[in-house]
Amino acid sequence: MEKESNKITLTVERFNVDFSCPVNEFGGIMCDKCERFFDCRSPRKWEIYNAGRMGLVKEKMKRIKHKIAIVGGKGGVGKTTVSVNFSMDLALRGYRVSILDSDFDGSCVPKMLGTVGERLKIGNKGVIPVEGPLGIQIISMGNVVEKDQVITWYTDLRRGATEEFLSHVDYGERDFLIIDLPPGTSADSVNTMEFIPDIDGALVVTIPSVVSQGIALKAALLCKKANVRILGVVENMSGHICRFCGHKNDILASGGGESLARQLEAPFLGKIPLDGSLSKTADEGIPFVKAFPETEAAKATKIITDKVLESIGVNGAGY
Amino acid sequence: MEKESNKITLTVERFNVDFSCPVNEFGGIMCDKCERFFDCRSPRKWEIYNAGRMGLVKEKMKRIKHKIAIVGGKGGVGKTTVSVNFSMDLALRGYRVSILDSDFDGSCVPKMLGTVGERLKIGNKGVIPVEGPLGIQIISMGNVVEKDQVITWYTDLRRGATEEFLSHVDYGERDFLIIDLPPGTSADSVNTMEFIPDIDGALVVTIPSVVSQGIALKAALLCKKANVRILGVVENMSGHICRFCGHKNDILASGGGESLARQLEAPFLGKIPLDGSLSKTADEGIPFVKAFPETEAAKATKIITDKVLESIGVNGAGY
Repeated sequence: MEKESNKITLTVERFNVDFSCPVNEFGGIMCDKCERFFDCRSPRKWEIYNAGRMGLVKEKMKRIKHKIAIVGGKGGVGKTTVSVNFSMDLALRGYRVSILDSDFDGSCVPKMLGTVGERLKIGNKGVIPVEGPLGIQIISMGNVVEKDQVITWYTDLRRGATEEFLSHVDYGERDFLIIDLPPGTSADSVNTMEFIPDIDGALVVTIPSVVSQGIALKAALLCKKANVRILGVVENMSGHICRFCGHKNDILASGGGESLARQLEAPFLGKIPLDGSLSKTADEGIPFVKAFPETEAAKATKIITDKVLESIGVNGAGY
Repeated sequence: MEKESNKITLTVERFNVDFSCPVNEFGGIMCDKCERFFDCRSPRKWEIYNAGRMGLVKEKMKRIKHKIAIVGGKGGVGKTTVSVNFSMDLALRGYRVSILDSDFDGSCVPKMLGTVGERLKIGNKGVIPVEGPLGIQIISMGNVVEKDQVITWYTDLRRGATEEFLSHVDYGERDFLIIDLPPGTSADSVNTMEFIPDIDGALVVTIPSVVSQGIALKAALLCKKANVRILGVVENMSGHICRFCGHKNDILASGGGESLARQLEAPFLGKIPLDGSLSKTADEGIPFVKAFPETEAAKATKIITDKVLESIGVNGAGY
């Protein structure tokens, strides 16, 4: 293993890596702007980090009781579907919920909660979140950029925007912040986890295929690096029940979620099946836990919510 | 519309944007390292760009006759499935094919072509691609990083690695380079399109849902910005045929691909249905066009290949 690591490092070195620390105009090291934060072993990093602008984020984040990240590594596995349904289920139970859509290029939260046409506004206390159904607050680039417009979000800008979304948004007092992380295990995910030092934990979403499972594992490993607890694994798109004959088809194989949970030594939280009406609810902006509470998918989601609330020590029935 | 654009710019400005040009240690502007390349209107950019290290990439790329990008914006829509099956179909027709897996965090090409255990090696003429089935060359981070390892690919490193993958890989004489782009419309996609100035065109992959279609539109708009021709739209996961009763279920709605093609004024190339055996072939490393040539998915892929070859002026039967 040690030998393998060396080999990787050597290969990586051949690929033009610049491992120097980012410095400001006065030559000071800017740990709070560094994408390598979780890989860095310098004992000074927290000191430098805390002396930076993080105070603002910390202060703002104190007013939100629980923060839960939804990760998956791979795109298209249903991180946003899980995020909006989990948020909606929490809201239905009476909690005050905010969703942070950290996907700059593929923000789907506004579409799935029916707020595409609305725009973030700037008020006296900072940016005012868009209000979705049941008072769910939405912070998403999908409510900034027009739908027929493409903005290439440069690295500095993404980092800046993530910070602004956390420090300059007027969330007020909230019970939950659900953080819908983008695909990938690089800068965007690192930025968000770095900015919120007290995330309660992460839900890892995978589809049953082995391919997806391998990428979800990487996302979970990043959480471990960042000291974010894995609350459990959700298997999405887990089989499809034919609406003509009622038989279940395992379209994307089966069991990937359970196997990933074992590998991570984390709880397996449940399987959400594919269902034609669910895709339609997403397109129409009403999460299925609300639109079709009697479906297998909605029931599975509610059990997942119960388990998550229990594992972070919250009484599922309300505060 | 003008007013809307102004509003966006203003909002973006509040988000900590640094719009200054990147400069080197001598104060020279480095257009060839700029993520904002396609947004920049300076007439000097190409001049500065060509004076940089791009010569190497151009020289290497000359020996590959055709370059086709597979884009989708959203993750999980099947960009890699389309990439490996299209590549395999080309290889079956006798073409010399290379695949560049531009997804650093979620590289699935090695898994889907059965070369996970192999590693890129460095020879006299540069990096030697991994050889997959039918002589398909694979360049992927999945053949650099161990599967249980997560590397946070910092922005500079990703850019550097993309450049190395294009300039320091010993491809030799090839007929096709298939570029499997990652989710998103930011740095990674921009880098790749910037480094390869003579891409023949892009295949836009979407799933039928409206949500996916909106993100694919953004990817297509980025191609237009970069002057990359849209060869057409592929609708993936287009319905599922129940293996018990044979009825077709529209799991993710239907018609999204055709509607996107109309919007882009690009050809609609075909629909690839969901099929349980296909996910299995991906996990086992044999693309379905080879493993199950008689399935509807394989037949649809072959028609897509025919149409693409025709649109770039290549005779489908071979050179």
